[in-house]
This record gives sequence, C-alpha cells and structure tokens, in this order.
Amino acid sequence: MTQYPERVTVYEVGPRDGLQNESGTVPTADKIAFIDALSDTGLQAIEITSFVSPRWIPQLADGAEVARSIRRRPGVLYSALVPNRKGLDAALSSGMTTIAVFLSASETHNKKNVNKTIAETLRAFEDVVGPAKAAGARVRAYVSTVYGCPYEGDVDPRRVVELTKTLRDMGVYQVSLGDTIGVANPAQVERVLHMLLAEIPSDQIAMHMHDTRGTALANCLVGLGLGITTFDSSVGGLGGCPYAPGASGNLATEDLVACLHAMGIQTGVDLEKLVAASQLVSASVGRELPSRYLKAHLGQAARLLRKRS
Amino acid sequence: MTQYPERVTVYEVGPRDGLQNESGTVPTADKIAFIDALSDTGLQAIEITSFVSPRWIPQLADGAEVARSIRRRPGVLYSALVPNRKGLDAALSSGMTTIAVFLSASETHNKKNVNKTIAETLRAFEDVVGPAKAAGARVRAYVSTVYGCPYEGDVDPRRVVELTKTLRDMGVYQVSLGDTIGVANPAQVERVLHMLLAEIPSDQIAMHMHDTRGTALANCLVGLGLGITTFDSSVGGLGGCPYAPGASGNLATEDLVACLHAMGIQTGVDLEKLVAASQLVSASVGRELPSRYLKAHLGQAARLLRKRS
Repeated sequence: MTQYPERVTVYEVGPRDGLQNESGTVPTADKIAFIDALSDTGLQAIEITSFVSPRWIPQLADGAEVARSIRRRPGVLYSALVPNRKGLDAALSSGMTTIAVFLSASETHNKKNVNKTIAETLRAFEDVVGPAKAAGARVRAYVSTVYGCPYEGDVDPRRVVELTKTLRDMGVYQVSLGDTIGVANPAQVERVLHMLLAEIPSDQIAMHMHDTRGTALANCLVGLGLGITTFDSSVGGLGGCPYAPGASGNLATEDLVACLHAMGIQTGVDLEKLVAASQLVSASVGRELPSRYLKAHLGQAARLLRKRS
Repeated sequence: MTQYPERVTVYEVGPRDGLQNESGTVPTADKIAFIDALSDTGLQAIEITSFVSPRWIPQLADGAEVARSIRRRPGVLYSALVPNRKGLDAALSSGMTTIAVFLSASETHNKKNVNKTIAETLRAFEDVVGPAKAAGARVRAYVSTVYGCPYEGDVDPRRVVELTKTLRDMGVYQVSLGDTIGVANPAQVERVLHMLLAEIPSDQIAMHMHDTRGTALANCLVGLGLGITTFDSSVGGLGGCPYAPGASGNLATEDLVACLHAMGIQTGVDLEKLVAASQLVSASVGRELPSRYLKAHLGQAARLLRKRS
C-alpha cells in the first residue's frame, strides 16, 4: 500500500490568489470577516493579501488595512505577496511576519507578469529576501508555470529544479510550485517531483495545483505519495482561471480537505467551518463557487430541507 | 516511476446513465444523433439505453427505437441495461449483442433500487445471463455503492469481492464497480482493488467513479497504477447526482480522456469530436454540463474569439 503522510498543511490562498482573480472588488470589511472566518477553521496557513501596486491588482489595494485589521490567531501563519522592496516595507509595517515573492519558470510568462527576465527577477529578489529575513520575517516563493506555460508550452523541469535551488539558497524557506494554467498530469508530476526531491527536502516544496481540467486532486495525490506535505488551495475554488473565462482555477480547499480526511490524513481543518467561510466569500463576490464538495454539501442540505418540509 | 497501461478502454455511459438522471426527456431523434456523434469519436464502448420499465425510467422509454435506429460503427461495443428476462428479450430483438445487469453491494440500496434482496437479485440474474449468452450476447454487470451507501454508510469490501466472483462465475465478462455517491477516496480504492485483484484478473474489472466530491480522477489514477484498463464515464459529466441536486455525478469523459492523453495513455478518442458530442447533448438537455475540461476548452475558445474581434 502507498504510504501517505499522517498530517499535511493546507495553505489557504483564497484571500490573495482567489480574490485577485475575481472581477468584482470585495469590500475591505468583507475581506476581514472572511479571513477571520478562515482563521477559525483550523487552517495552519493563510495568504491574506498582496502588497503589489493597486495599478496592477486593484482588487487588493486595501492590503495594508486588511493586514492591520484581521484577528491573528496564535499558531496560524499569515502571509502576504510582495513584489519589491516598497511592498516589503509596507508589509512589514502592517505587521506581516511571512512574505511571499513570485516569478515564473517560463521567460515569456515572467516577462508578461512582471516585465523582467527571470534573471532580473532573481536579482530583484535580493532587495527583498535579505531585508525581510533581517527584519525577522520568513520568505516563501511562488514559481508559476512549472508544468506548462500559456505562451511557451512545455517547461523544462531542470529549470524548475535550478530555480528552486537558487531560491532556497537565497533564504526562501519554501517554494510553492504552481500549475498556473492547470495542464499538469499525474505522470508529469511524478517525473518533476522525482527530479526535485533528489535535490531538495520535501518540506521545502509545496504544490499549488489548478483544477482547470479537473486534475488537481489527482496531481496532489502523486505528491502526497512522494511525501509532499504542503498543498496550496483556495476556499470554494475562489478565483477562476484568467486564461479561460468561466473555467476553474485554484484547487478548492474543501475538495482537498475532504479527500485528505477521507484518506485518514489530518489537516486540523473543520470542514463545516470551511464551508461557512466559503459561503461568506461566495456572497461577497456574488457568484456560486466551483468546489465540487461544496456543491454536493449544499445539494444534500437542500434535499434534507425539502424532505422535512 | 509508476507503470501505467499503454492503452485503456473508455466506456461511455452518457446516453444511458447520464440521460436517465437528467430531469427532462430528450427527443428520440436527439438521442440517436448524440449516440451517432459518440460513435464517430473513436470511443470503443457505448451504453446506449436501458430496457427497464418506462414506469421506472421514463427518460429511456424509447430504448427499442434508439437501439434500432443508431448507426452501428464496426469495432464499437454497444450495450444496453437490462433488468429482467422481459428486458433481455426486448434488447435482443432490438439488435443488442451486449447487455448489462445491475445490483448494489449494499442491501438497502439494492432493495430501494430493485425491490429485491441481493440474493434474490442474483437468482433473478440466472433468468437473464444464461439466456443472453445462449443467444450469443455478452453480459456486463454493474455493482453500485461499492465504496459507500447513502443509507448504510460503509460497505464491506469482502462483500464486493464475493459479489464480483459470483457474477464472473455466472458468466459475466466484466464487472463495473460503481462509486454511486462519489464518496470513494484513493486510499480506500487502493485497498479495495488490492483485495479484488488478488482473486480476479484486471480486465474483468471496470471502474465507474463519480465526481460528486471531485475525487473521480484521483481514484481512477489509483486503478490505472494497479493495471485496471476499463473506465466508465459520461460525456460532459451528463447525469448529475440524484442524491445531491446540483452536484456532479458521473466522471466526465472529457476530463478522463484529456488526463489519459496528457499522461501518454492511448484511448483512441478524438477529444475535439468528443467536445462536439458533449455540446450536442448539452443543447438537448438545456443545461451547461459540469466537465472541467469542457469549460476550460469553451472558455479558451471564447477568449480567442474576443481577441480576434
């Protein structure tokens, strides 16, 4: 039988990665209530906002206010995305103690995303990672387009391994490897993770899978079997896919947590509370969220209500 | 690296299992056009209808007409669901050469579904399987609630193994094991399949997973790694879940085929033609189908159109 970890960390990215890809702007008070609700679910890590220029991501222009206003629950890691030194300073002065930097594994996606080459981006990280650590903050990194790029297609896994090692050597504590457009398949994930795990300890790697083609859980399963213990997801599947309007983006936290619990793997998350947080943000963004577990749960509840009445 | 089969059979159940769970009735001509479109995709097996009493499944009351009117493509297996001797005779006289019988692994679900105990159902099969084989037809069997029952909860996997052996000994060529309410998890699937494969050759078992909680592909992946080579699915995810209105039911054929192809596993299916068949039936049932791959595909197409205009 496959040996799976006994416990994993679910890294909730809905308030940042989810909301930045929703078309409407959610009121600041709603965001704070949403993050506070997430804090009460038992989640161990929550990315709450970004300190990227509001010209780039207007949806998260209120990052500083959100960071200052949420209720911080002891034991929960709160992080924020930071693009440069200015963002770092804003994050630190808003009380953040974990920040996240980001780049792509493919040149074209990186250029379109941050208007820099990958080499330039890595040099710019030196302005952020050192000072962040000097200020006592931990630094996470997101690598996008690990399993495929919307502009270049295939991505060389050796580049992913090299980037991950460079980031680790720079002082990043964990590299989250993103399937940005949801094209990864389980055989590919196995190959890429084998290459990575030959050189990097499993706790320094997180999986950030998108469910655009319904493969996110299958891909996570491969990582679980290889000992990966941190998985990014977005409550309800908040966020959508910017490359295919109407399609799914981030793996839904409910789908991930429900599957892990069914497998006997602990997450510390209370699924009922998670569903409540999901419904809260669903009301704020004004749309039904795509999580399969959520739909099944709400459908069953509706059926029971009809039976009773 | 995990060894996966080079080729698998995708067993399309949309025209039967899908349409029987859609609320509206689809015109017979639409069904015929739909099945003919499926025949042109390269699918190797299609379940086209059922010969169950129209009082039970009014959606498929036109089974005989459908069976007589479709264009049968050489090399494609066409099957129909049959509950008893009367249904068998109707199926045979409509030109069917493969039929499928069905029962549940849990007593309560079986009783509610066919108003018989499991033992009574197995005895009734003798009226069907022998005569079917004597008439030169092949017999498949569906076992429902293999991984959990909506009334009883857990299902003993030893009962599933015993039932599968009994059906095989009766002359059934393949037993399709259904996760009727979509509660299976990958660790459980591994345990159940290990027990089954210790006693039954892998080509006598098919997996019929539901995507109610988003786990169908992850569950199929486990079976693939253990050598299972037949997977049931429903184009577009047609059918929904009768136990949770609004939720997903059958695994979507597009999601399965796209994942298999990405893994380098052949199915013989042309994905573009599959999407066309999916859109055809989506128009007939008057709703958007839940396949993730389908939504991503249509979303990308819409984006390209907007760019061009």
